[in-house]
Amino acid sequence: MNKPEDNLWDGGLSFAKLDFAREARTGFGETVFCPGKTEAQLVAILDAFHKSNRPVLGTKCSIAQFRAAEAAGLPLEYDETSRVLVSAWASPKPVEGTVAVCTGGTADIPVAEEAARTAVFFGATVQRQYDVGVAGLHRLIGRIGEIRKADAVIAVAGMEGALGSVLAGLVEVPVVAVPTSVGYGASFKGLAPLLAMLNSCAEGMTVVNIDNGFGAAAFVCRMLRSRMKRERS
Amino acid sequence: MNKPEDNLWDGGLSFAKLDFAREARTGFGETVFCPGKTEAQLVAILDAFHKSNRPVLGTKCSIAQFRAAEAAGLPLEYDETSRVLVSAWASPKPVEGTVAVCTGGTADIPVAEEAARTAVFFGATVQRQYDVGVAGLHRLIGRIGEIRKADAVIAVAGMEGALGSVLAGLVEVPVVAVPTSVGYGASFKGLAPLLAMLNSCAEGMTVVNIDNGFGAAAFVCRMLRSRMKRERS
Amino acid sequence: MNKPEDNLWDGGLSFAKLDFAREARTGFGETVFCPGKTEAQLVAILDAFHKSNRPVLGTKCSIAQFRAAEAAGLPLEYDETSRVLVSAWASPKPVEGTVAVCTGGTADIPVAEEAARTAVFFGATVQRQYDVGVAGLHRLIGRIGEIRKADAVIAVAGMEGALGSVLAGLVEVPVVAVPTSVGYGASFKGLAPLLAMLNSCAEGMTVVNIDNGFGAAAFVCRMLRSRMKRERS
Amino acid sequence: MNKPEDNLWDGGLSFAKLDFAREARTGFGETVFCPGKTEAQLVAILDAFHKSNRPVLGTKCSIAQFRAAEAAGLPLEYDETSRVLVSAWASPKPVEGTVAVCTGGTADIPVAEEAARTAVFFGATVQRQYDVGVAGLHRLIGRIGEIRKADAVIAVAGMEGALGSVLAGLVEVPVVAVPTSVGYGASFKGLAPLLAMLNSCAEGMTVVNIDNGFGAAAFVCRMLRSRMKRERS
Amino acid sequence: MNKPEDNLWDGGLSFAKLDFAREARTGFGETVFCPGKTEAQLVAILDAFHKSNRPVLGTKCSIAQFRAAEAAGLPLEYDETSRVLVSAWASPKPVEGTVAVCTGGTADIPVAEEAARTAVFFGATVQRQYDVGVAGLHRLIGRIGEIRKADAVIAVAGMEGALGSVLAGLVEVPVVAVPTSVGYGASFKGLAPLLAMLNSCAEGMTVVNIDNGFGAAAFVCRMLRSRMKRERS
Amino acid sequence: MNKPEDNLWDGGLSFAKLDFAREARTGFGETVFCPGKTEAQLVAILDAFHKSNRPVLGTKCSIAQFRAAEAAGLPLEYDETSRVLVSAWASPKPVEGTVAVCTGGTADIPVAEEAARTAVFFGATVQRQYDVGVAGLHRLIGRIGEIRKADAVIAVAGMEGALGSVLAGLVEVPVVAVPTSVGYGASFKGLAPLLAMLNSCAEGMTVVNIDNGFGAAAFVCRMLRSRMKRERS
Amino acid sequence: MNKPEDNLWDGGLSFAKLDFAREARTGFGETVFCPGKTEAQLVAILDAFHKSNRPVLGTKCSIAQFRAAEAAGLPLEYDETSRVLVSAWASPKPVEGTVAVCTGGTADIPVAEEAARTAVFFGATVQRQYDVGVAGLHRLIGRIGEIRKADAVIAVAGMEGALGSVLAGLVEVPVVAVPTSVGYGASFKGLAPLLAMLNSCAEGMTVVNIDNGFGAAAFVCRMLRSRMKRERS
Amino acid sequence: MNKPEDNLWDGGLSFAKLDFAREARTGFGETVFCPGKTEAQLVAILDAFHKSNRPVLGTKCSIAQFRAAEAAGLPLEYDETSRVLVSAWASPKPVEGTVAVCTGGTADIPVAEEAARTAVFFGATVQRQYDVGVAGLHRLIGRIGEIRKADAVIAVAGMEGALGSVLAGLVEVPVVAVPTSVGYGASFKGLAPLLAMLNSCAEGMTVVNIDNGFGAAAFVCRMLRSRMKRERS
Repeated sequence: MNKPEDNLWDGGLSFAKLDFAREARTGFGETVFCPGKTEAQLVAILDAFHKSNRPVLGTKCSIAQFRAAEAAGLPLEYDETSRVLVSAWASPKPVEGTVAVCTGGTADIPVAEEAARTAVFFGATVQRQYDVGVAGLHRLIGRIGEIRKADAVIAVAGMEGALGSVLAGLVEVPVVAVPTSVGYGASFKGLAPLLAMLNSCAEGMTVVNIDNGFGAAAFVCRMLRSRMKRERS
Repeated sequence: MNKPEDNLWDGGLSFAKLDFAREARTGFGETVFCPGKTEAQLVAILDAFHKSNRPVLGTKCSIAQFRAAEAAGLPLEYDETSRVLVSAWASPKPVEGTVAVCTGGTADIPVAEEAARTAVFFGATVQRQYDVGVAGLHRLIGRIGEIRKADAVIAVAGMEGALGSVLAGLVEVPVVAVPTSVGYGASFKGLAPLLAMLNSCAEGMTVVNIDNGFGAAAFVCRMLRSRMKRERS
Repeated sequence: MNKPEDNLWDGGLSFAKLDFAREARTGFGETVFCPGKTEAQLVAILDAFHKSNRPVLGTKCSIAQFRAAEAAGLPLEYDETSRVLVSAWASPKPVEGTVAVCTGGTADIPVAEEAARTAVFFGATVQRQYDVGVAGLHRLIGRIGEIRKADAVIAVAGMEGALGSVLAGLVEVPVVAVPTSVGYGASFKGLAPLLAMLNSCAEGMTVVNIDNGFGAAAFVCRMLRSRMKRERS
Repeated sequence: MNKPEDNLWDGGLSFAKLDFAREARTGFGETVFCPGKTEAQLVAILDAFHKSNRPVLGTKCSIAQFRAAEAAGLPLEYDETSRVLVSAWASPKPVEGTVAVCTGGTADIPVAEEAARTAVFFGATVQRQYDVGVAGLHRLIGRIGEIRKADAVIAVAGMEGALGSVLAGLVEVPVVAVPTSVGYGASFKGLAPLLAMLNSCAEGMTVVNIDNGFGAAAFVCRMLRSRMKRERS
Repeated sequence: MNKPEDNLWDGGLSFAKLDFAREARTGFGETVFCPGKTEAQLVAILDAFHKSNRPVLGTKCSIAQFRAAEAAGLPLEYDETSRVLVSAWASPKPVEGTVAVCTGGTADIPVAEEAARTAVFFGATVQRQYDVGVAGLHRLIGRIGEIRKADAVIAVAGMEGALGSVLAGLVEVPVVAVPTSVGYGASFKGLAPLLAMLNSCAEGMTVVNIDNGFGAAAFVCRMLRSRMKRERS
Repeated sequence: MNKPEDNLWDGGLSFAKLDFAREARTGFGETVFCPGKTEAQLVAILDAFHKSNRPVLGTKCSIAQFRAAEAAGLPLEYDETSRVLVSAWASPKPVEGTVAVCTGGTADIPVAEEAARTAVFFGATVQRQYDVGVAGLHRLIGRIGEIRKADAVIAVAGMEGALGSVLAGLVEVPVVAVPTSVGYGASFKGLAPLLAMLNSCAEGMTVVNIDNGFGAAAFVCRMLRSRMKRERS
Repeated sequence: MNKPEDNLWDGGLSFAKLDFAREARTGFGETVFCPGKTEAQLVAILDAFHKSNRPVLGTKCSIAQFRAAEAAGLPLEYDETSRVLVSAWASPKPVEGTVAVCTGGTADIPVAEEAARTAVFFGATVQRQYDVGVAGLHRLIGRIGEIRKADAVIAVAGMEGALGSVLAGLVEVPVVAVPTSVGYGASFKGLAPLLAMLNSCAEGMTVVNIDNGFGAAAFVCRMLRSRMKRERS
Repeated sequence: MNKPEDNLWDGGLSFAKLDFAREARTGFGETVFCPGKTEAQLVAILDAFHKSNRPVLGTKCSIAQFRAAEAAGLPLEYDETSRVLVSAWASPKPVEGTVAVCTGGTADIPVAEEAARTAVFFGATVQRQYDVGVAGLHRLIGRIGEIRKADAVIAVAGMEGALGSVLAGLVEVPVVAVPTSVGYGASFKGLAPLLAMLNSCAEGMTVVNIDNGFGAAAFVCRMLRSRMKRERS
């Protein structure tokens, strides 16, 4: 149904329209949300990136999906904790700057790692500050000097999600808050920290979807890239 | 339909069963939730307390309700901010102890005053620590020495409701958190701080209904009264 | 990234900041929320407590997590019903007092046991009053004399969650209500009893998260400990 | 657009299809839900009942609507508390039996009166048992002997809505529970007692919509009428 | 902790208070909600009923639970579709009357069978009218003559849950509506039919919890029993 | 900030971009959602349509907004019931076909009139079938012959929202369902009929937003227009 | 309980009332929603269609259900991606027209295929336009010329669900939007795109249930069939 | 209760702790959320800023509140549309950069103006691009060249909230999305666009609370200020 020339422009797949032009348009290459894709679909998508030597990052990738891609001979790096998959054959043009990725607790680490690895993929330097939740403020206070040196802060927290508010009151740089589905009962799978973060009384903070570490890092890296362009222009 | 002796035991009203025996049973006299009562009903209820010389406290009382009661010649004290009404003719046997009532912001003060005035009615000493929300931690840190001297803390906060979590990590005494409907949008009339407080990662904190300053103070005073009994037994 | 001296203060782990100073600050040692932690992380955390001879309690610990810790040679006690894990090597300085843990039904027992075992860990005496729900009031009435002897009541109930309201009207001591996810359909995993408990018309009751037996007991023990300090001062 | 003969069968109105045949089909005449109807529409509907000498009951009728109907010369009885309107010109064939209408608090009375007046309209005997909520069980226990004499119980309660569960455990007859929007905060306009009543652990109880006193009484009267038919057949 | 005589009155179990007196108080014996009970607990409960030769009905009983009880030598009848378990050793004193159990679709049958088998257990005659949903009205119309002969109707429906409204407009007897979790997407596990049924514009209908076929039948049987008492008095 | 030529293309307003090209693109002219616009903004928008002699329809227009437009000398037609405003100076090229607009009750008429007047504006013939809800099926059955003659059906209903399901099972033409906010309590402002309609077991029905009579009619008219094009091509 | 002649009319099954008359009444044969049916029930239903040589389509059919039907010797076609099952023995009288089925992403394909295969079953020509979501508008723009040639558009999208709004602004034909449960966190299983689609600012679009590809196609085919009748009359 | 020196540090008010040190800590002065504050409280707060010659911005300020402050002789600027209040006596040290504030429709302008005026207060250049919603893509496409020149984009939209997703796919700079409560019915006061924005399939976008134009601008200005610091260091 599609004309051949369309397919070339789209990466040559019938079921997916790869956006190879996005890099030119928004400054970033395409990334792949893996859930809901068959192994065959995912392999075909990754293969198209590989063939055109373009970098690619996949999120929430299951081990089975990764194994299928690996079995197809694609050179990939995969992290089980964060379920992040990255191309070993190419990397995006790196952004410049440091991101502090902080978590309220240990159970928030998988989401934080999704953010951290995304930021690393885009070339940022990452500072990991895990388990610094507000119930033990001294832990956070002990780290605040270091956190203040970053260009942006990503605050990852489940339960009551207060970490972002407290951080935004303590640092000068932009804070992006990531609610997580860590918790139980009235957490309602992350609704509690999501609403808390949206209602923060602190200025200088925005929010992404529950468990969306990737989205926070992609935003922060867009911010860093945008700054680079400005500085050079 | 009711037998006369029933009515006496109930306070003599046909539409309400006053619980004059509650004091004996739970250690506290009855209190009155004013919304939804006609002015005539409220006056009749208060009058029954007055005639039997028993103390009474009314919550969420409108000015019109108060004026009607005042016009009926009942000696009452009324506070417009908190909409708390108390009998001037009698007081409960006082509890012993100090309660620190803290708020995240200025707009939480009406709910905090409901808590404070309820605690005062029951005989507690009250320490008011208003506008110490987590977006400016130094404000809270500056007060923490004084707050630690209280026997219990009531943390009143809307928006992201993080005050209770932070306080529970900083003091040794029990913390009762009161979410408020202060905020807008995704606050959903207090749902955001309510969920945040229920999901607190801090130990030693419990929660009451949105805007229920009375409930927090009544609980804390029950705790103080219970302690008195224990100490004397 | 962290300085060595930080790590010592934090318990020496890179991914978790153990709060060994919490006991000094809040009167209690740290407890561990087990879900979301890898077995290796949990073992490392417990080991740090063990090495420093500090007591520790873990909640919602899976059998697999417990087995991993046991295999690592840590002397622990584990209860399958409540999924509570406690250190066999040390106990907190005990609080004084009795807690009545009541349930509406048999299916609420796992949450009640989480509360009971937490209270026992902190040194309280526990009175178990199970299956005394409001649909058969005589069962509750038959126990009320004994319940009244406790210093605090924990009311654990799913479904309509009315147990707390009824209890708070029958005893003098503070009541902490724990909604459970027992039920189906319009229970919405515990939302029904949670909302019911928050809206209780009874005074002297507060609420914790759905299925949070630990939180209720930790609050009650903080209350008992706080009273001890007062009595001795 | 409608043929004249249709209109006659429908009561002769173009905007409403009156169901004069319902009595034959379901044993009851039609009732009118007043909100959302213009005064002119309501008057025309009532007038059609008046002209055909059929009884009619209107629910949630505003004073302005009643005044408009009264001004049109229709002989009506109106109760401000319950906002129930009944035809003075005709009554349904009465059912036989007694209904106990109970409330948790004084603020539930308007909804209870809607139930009571509906039951009276259909010919039932009504026993009013107001302010017998579960926070003061002795009030309910003191009435239970009389309540047990009724053929059915309507339990009207807001807040935690536990009255129905407790009643259903104490009486032999069917209990219909009516949640009310009395309360604030996490009541969410009656959602809390609605969910609580639906999740009742007591057998022999069903539920109607929030504030739907009419629906509970109409159901109970259908039950009583159905029994009459059976007894006579 | 419990005195021996208490245990006898309660059925002799430490973890459950069996309500052998309920029959005298409410006219019905006890029933058992099986989920959340260990196999050992359930067997002990059933055994206590068996030893005292009292009838018992269990709901939402898993096959594993049934097998455990069977292996313990208890004479039971079990139905896999409805997951209803009944004692083979004794039956309640039967009620008199016929119940029409109707479903919107085939997938609602498990819930309908829970209702039907509960009604049979209590002695009612049951008329099954399955798959008569409103999208094909002629199916319902074809059955309505027979349905009208019943003493009560139980309308079981998922999806839009309109069956009850339509039935209540077509029959004279009381209708109890049971929403089911059949459906997907915006059904939100039965919330859609639950809300629809609560908002029915038809009179003479009440509602029970999602998937609570038992509750509907227990209510209807209470109604039938109550009528029997009346007729004999 | 905008270049003059942009403004001409947009209708010449700085705060609104009128889409005069939409007619060419989608076959329809622009319509105006009035809430949230100041009177001055609305007048300016309408004036731009007037000056270019293009037809316009405004929805949910307050009387005050209409009065302001009228005072500005714009020739408009306004209907208070539906709050629909239409240009008297021009009409769209009419579609061909008949739409049956049906309501469950009288209170649904304002939304139904919004649909009906929108359909009339676009040139359709409208058949009004009001108050034919499912609780009195004979009312609907009596009209069904006439309804079947229409090219499309719009089913407007609040409360349980079953009208659409029943209609879709009785007619051959497409049915668009409009949930209304008519009702109270667990209607949750139209959520109940919205969910019911989305979960309909009947085929051949789609749904629009609560109270969106306009949307249903605009869709149906697009369908009719699309058919015209096809027939002529 | 059912008379034999009833059963014939119903397709001869005791647990299901097959609606063989629906084709005459609504222009379509019956379709089967497979979840919740036992394999035996589904086989019996399909067999009844087979015996009477009528076409049938099943939705959301599990592989196990399909295998059971296949093992029973029924000639069926089954698609694993969409879980659609169709009779190989008969087809409905085909509609005329083309439907463009579009998706936002690759993960929406199973729902889109349910729509596409349903449309093919009813005889429509299907144009598949997958992975044209709004985050890369050029992908959609590149296809819009072809999409505009269709008689109707089905827009399948999860996440923010904006595809339908954008399409409705770009084409002249009716657009039916299908929200999908693709996404995570604050998608709340498809609630996010459902609400977005219901609130679309674009005219000419209606919505079906989450993941209900079948419903969208059935509606569109009803529209096409209805047009055919009109054109021929 | 507060020591005098505390008060000086806090701005000298007993009910509010002004955070004059915030500028040093986070780079910004304090801003005031006006709702819930009495006129007297607000005047006192503004006066403290005035006396110390510090800039201040108030949000969601009612006309009555502004009038009270004006009457107190404070030199203020107030905008009725956005309800933003700014000090005329002092301005913050300006940030450098341009912000494009875009809206989906005209009714979103008050929220957009809150963002625009906040950005102007902090010194940013503002580009207003109103009424460029996705239902008429050409309007947005016509502006995209200009929007791409900005350093950041604020996308303000109600209804389905798709503007942000489309913009994030078309520009290189960071996009902050602001859902608005514009809409009705299933918008649920802004929940629909909030969820849509959180689930955006576009990268490089974050979200703030419903109607929180201030929050979006404050975040963007923090980003711009942070960049300035970096460039100068």
